[in-house]
Amino acid sequence: MISQRLKALRNYMASKKLDAFIIPSTDPHQSEYVANHWKLREYFSGFTGSAGTLVVTKDIAGLWTDSRYFLQFEDECNDSEVILCKQSIPHAPEHVEWICNLLNENTIIGVDYRQFSKSQIDYILSFTSTKNIQLQNEPKFTDGIWTDRLALPNFPVDVHPIEFSGETTASKIDKVQTEIKNQDAQYYLFSSLDEIAWLFNIRSSDVDFTPLVTAYALVGANTSILFCNKSRFSQSAIATFGELNISVQEYDTVVSLLNEVPKEKTIITDPSTLNYSCFNAVSGRFIYQNSIVKELKAIKNEIEIEGAKNCMLKDGVALTKFFIWLEQELENREISEYEIGRKLDNFRQQQEYYTGESFAAIVGYKGNGAIIHYTAPEENSAMVKNEGILLVDSGAQYKDGTTDITRTVWLGGTPSTELKTAYTSVLKGYIELEQLQFPIGTTGAQIDAFARMHLWKNGLDYPHGTGHGIGSYGMVHEPAQGFATGATTARGTTPHLSHQLTTIEPGCYVTNQFGIRTENIVVSKVVKETAFGKFLGFEALTLCYIDTNLLNLEQLSTSEINWLNNYHQLVSDKLSPLLNEKEKQWLQQKCKAL
Amino acid sequence: MISQRLKALRNYMASKKLDAFIIPSTDPHQSEYVANHWKLREYFSGFTGSAGTLVVTKDIAGLWTDSRYFLQFEDECNDSEVILCKQSIPHAPEHVEWICNLLNENTIIGVDYRQFSKSQIDYILSFTSTKNIQLQNEPKFTDGIWTDRLALPNFPVDVHPIEFSGETTASKIDKVQTEIKNQDAQYYLFSSLDEIAWLFNIRSSDVDFTPLVTAYALVGANTSILFCNKSRFSQSAIATFGELNISVQEYDTVVSLLNEVPKEKTIITDPSTLNYSCFNAVSGRFIYQNSIVKELKAIKNEIEIEGAKNCMLKDGVALTKFFIWLEQELENREISEYEIGRKLDNFRQQQEYYTGESFAAIVGYKGNGAIIHYTAPEENSAMVKNEGILLVDSGAQYKDGTTDITRTVWLGGTPSTELKTAYTSVLKGYIELEQLQFPIGTTGAQIDAFARMHLWKNGLDYPHGTGHGIGSYGMVHEPAQGFATGATTARGTTPHLSHQLTTIEPGCYVTNQFGIRTENIVVSKVVKETAFGKFLGFEALTLCYIDTNLLNLEQLSTSEINWLNNYHQLVSDKLSPLLNEKEKQWLQQKCKAL
Repeated sequence: MISQRLKALRNYMASKKLDAFIIPSTDPHQSEYVANHWKLREYFSGFTGSAGTLVVTKDIAGLWTDSRYFLQFEDECNDSEVILCKQSIPHAPEHVEWICNLLNENTIIGVDYRQFSKSQIDYILSFTSTKNIQLQNEPKFTDGIWTDRLALPNFPVDVHPIEFSGETTASKIDKVQTEIKNQDAQYYLFSSLDEIAWLFNIRSSDVDFTPLVTAYALVGANTSILFCNKSRFSQSAIATFGELNISVQEYDTVVSLLNEVPKEKTIITDPSTLNYSCFNAVSGRFIYQNSIVKELKAIKNEIEIEGAKNCMLKDGVALTKFFIWLEQELENREISEYEIGRKLDNFRQQQEYYTGESFAAIVGYKGNGAIIHYTAPEENSAMVKNEGILLVDSGAQYKDGTTDITRTVWLGGTPSTELKTAYTSVLKGYIELEQLQFPIGTTGAQIDAFARMHLWKNGLDYPHGTGHGIGSYGMVHEPAQGFATGATTARGTTPHLSHQLTTIEPGCYVTNQFGIRTENIVVSKVVKETAFGKFLGFEALTLCYIDTNLLNLEQLSTSEINWLNNYHQLVSDKLSPLLNEKEKQWLQQKCKAL
Repeated sequence: MISQRLKALRNYMASKKLDAFIIPSTDPHQSEYVANHWKLREYFSGFTGSAGTLVVTKDIAGLWTDSRYFLQFEDECNDSEVILCKQSIPHAPEHVEWICNLLNENTIIGVDYRQFSKSQIDYILSFTSTKNIQLQNEPKFTDGIWTDRLALPNFPVDVHPIEFSGETTASKIDKVQTEIKNQDAQYYLFSSLDEIAWLFNIRSSDVDFTPLVTAYALVGANTSILFCNKSRFSQSAIATFGELNISVQEYDTVVSLLNEVPKEKTIITDPSTLNYSCFNAVSGRFIYQNSIVKELKAIKNEIEIEGAKNCMLKDGVALTKFFIWLEQELENREISEYEIGRKLDNFRQQQEYYTGESFAAIVGYKGNGAIIHYTAPEENSAMVKNEGILLVDSGAQYKDGTTDITRTVWLGGTPSTELKTAYTSVLKGYIELEQLQFPIGTTGAQIDAFARMHLWKNGLDYPHGTGHGIGSYGMVHEPAQGFATGATTARGTTPHLSHQLTTIEPGCYVTNQFGIRTENIVVSKVVKETAFGKFLGFEALTLCYIDTNLLNLEQLSTSEINWLNNYHQLVSDKLSPLLNEKEKQWLQQKCKAL
């Protein structure tokens, strides 16, 4: 099937004199999760992983992805002609240099400009230009090939009410318009879906796991255009927008409208998200900057933080009920990883304002926990017994917030010293970073290592960043702040500020043996102000017991034991009123002071 | 005087139709310390600080420098027309954007290409090109203006013997030639003086504080050229070079020889050090890379590490004798900061293989210690009494190594709690980073904050990086590894490897009150190897007691007290055999276990 599709693509390439074609995994908005309509890379390669780029030439179809997906690639693509090209750095465009080395001079690469940001095309051009390789925009290359391609989603759009958003659309638009005036520009062009959802206080269900709306937005000094099919909105929503000088226009008119922007106008935009098709449509001048909405959105207001805290109560209740169910059920039977994931979601569904999972839950038993982006298959996933280790990383979307939590639990038997050392070091790392006080503006790369130091002491480590921003009924991975080793990633280089929500999630993985990760969401706040400036600290928001069966108590300092006792007291105090007597007793047992 | 010089420069600019002139502080080799011949920026601005760039237009003469030098600028330039332009980031070329904004289209900036690296000119061109501003090479702009400009230094060149270098020139050249072959190139062009000194095992005294030789080097696949005046070498040195297929040619013939390199040849070079004049002279193809010699040189061999350890003994003895002298002398009289610095140097001069200071010693009493790049003036420097705090940052060049150490001592009276908290936090930070174990390849930015964490906890910090590489009878600030907050500096982004010498030097500064810094040189070594890879740790090499009068013992953990006792035991054990009985007793008192 894949080879038929590739054959059809190559026929198309031949007819258009294309020597190569690059098919990335994203949509016109650089989204992490995309609507089925945009699953082009999956369609032509069979690979369903969330990160990967397909490069097709006459002879080769190469799928570029990083080590998190190597096993998944083998599972999904082993029978096809698609070969695995191993990236050393996740999301790095290593295929660009490769294809430019491979191609002769004066050749042509086909791309759909909508799938590439302005920055990405600039990067490609820096390699193609020396060999006079041309890029050709091919927005219709699937016509006649992908005949059952789904249309773009067109679900109703909900207005995200002020009791959840905490700030009116008028106030948010006003901040953007102030920036337009400050920069002496006329427009601000947005293409990132979560920025548009935040700015206009709108939500829908266009993509998996994230309540976003497929749209563009052009904010002017006084009036704004939201490019999103009008039929998706209620009459009253349209009317309310009208009062704010926001007109709603059809999604697919964005390019033609951008064409009409006069040459002398200046548009501010973020080149890392603006797609090249939109960029190309404009004859005016651009000012490039990190999106102001990305920056504003990362600072949560008090209502959003209250919402997050409320979600943590709900998540905490669901997780407590889930772990009780798991413990009891395992006494009688084995349960598949897949069923465990579904059951956890069932418990969350019973909570107020629940709308869905915030990502595909990771339920990894024993060695499966070591596969960092593991998803238990619907059929034949591993059977979990009342012994050994289980990693559960999950989250939900509630209308008042987004959650993401990982716990690793011991199901029975005697854990090895190695396992206890690793588990204890992970917890110590979590505590170290969560308890750190640091100057406002410190970047994630500067402090990521505090979560690793105790692992390092034991010759251990983990091959991923330590945390990411998280949205408010938005994206579970929200830019830009976080904790990462790399000086090249936004999570590494973005200054931490007050009122941000970020995960702290150190781990430790031994292939075929175990995966450990402990993850809470924390909120940043100013804890001290001196002549040296403001200093930030974190407060844990996530409320769920931490399994003490895997702790090596001798490794913990007094202050670490105090931290754990205080945290468990908080979890117990906050969740107990929401549990029945039996559940309460079970939780208090888990939260008993050490 | 300065205004006469600027007037002459502006006359020259008018005659050449130049709208601006940029005069940086460096030489054709991007050296940190330059020969007097190259002190152009000082000549035209009067500013003697080590970092700063002068930009001259018809109306403005602006000196760009960072906060470390603001006070010095006021002292030195207050009476002249030169204005201070405050840089927010040290060494950042912030003046480039400024001058390009200021100038009209189609204007011309004069520069001496030799004073700019290839990378620096590329950076300038990225701003000038949009306004069609031209750069014009003006290597003779001081002719007829700076009439008493000194000639380039021409001192005899010493061969650095194998008992100090630990590796023959033949072996070093061989590694470069292997790289040339691996890259399918014909030449490797070097312009950094410390790289050339290392590669050819040569030393001289062309610049202050650093035993370098003014030279270029072109290494070919089989033969090499060292561009350095032949009269500087002994007959036997020339002969020995001859046996290695190294010919010595006059320094100023480099450009004409580079002109002759055929078009089809490929030259490897480091664009961050190669000056634009040399770059311009070549018609062949360049391969740009981080200099291989910079990388090789950063890994010290066993002889160099032995040499470093030997220097620490010598420095330790000199410092012990110095601190004894200081303590005794202060009982009877007040001593100027300047005299203290000279006296310390006197003690070092008595040590074997001493050749000079490795930088201008910083002796800062009370508030002067808070001026990070303070140099006590020869006349009217502060008078030090037997009370209060004194910061002494100093180092020496010995033929077997280079040293750099900072100690802060309490001279009498009762220190404030604030002072003790800061001093103790600085020491805790030093210990934290020195004791850290981390994966090989970890960058400086990732672990710099361990030296700050205890300061941060108390709302304190310091406005500089935490450490730098150091040479072996070479530069006191040797690239590339180190510890820095910034993801944009080499010290922040360079991976740490085994066998490197680096300083750890946290501090704390309160304007007009005190400066604290504690600095040791450490060597990196593999301390653990597991399935997760190799892990590095540090071993302190510097041997000098740490003043315990300023410690708040309640702030120190048991393991920190153990660290200090062990370190003091080491200092006492190593230095005592080299001291007389009285000195020994004094040191043992200072090193007494807590």
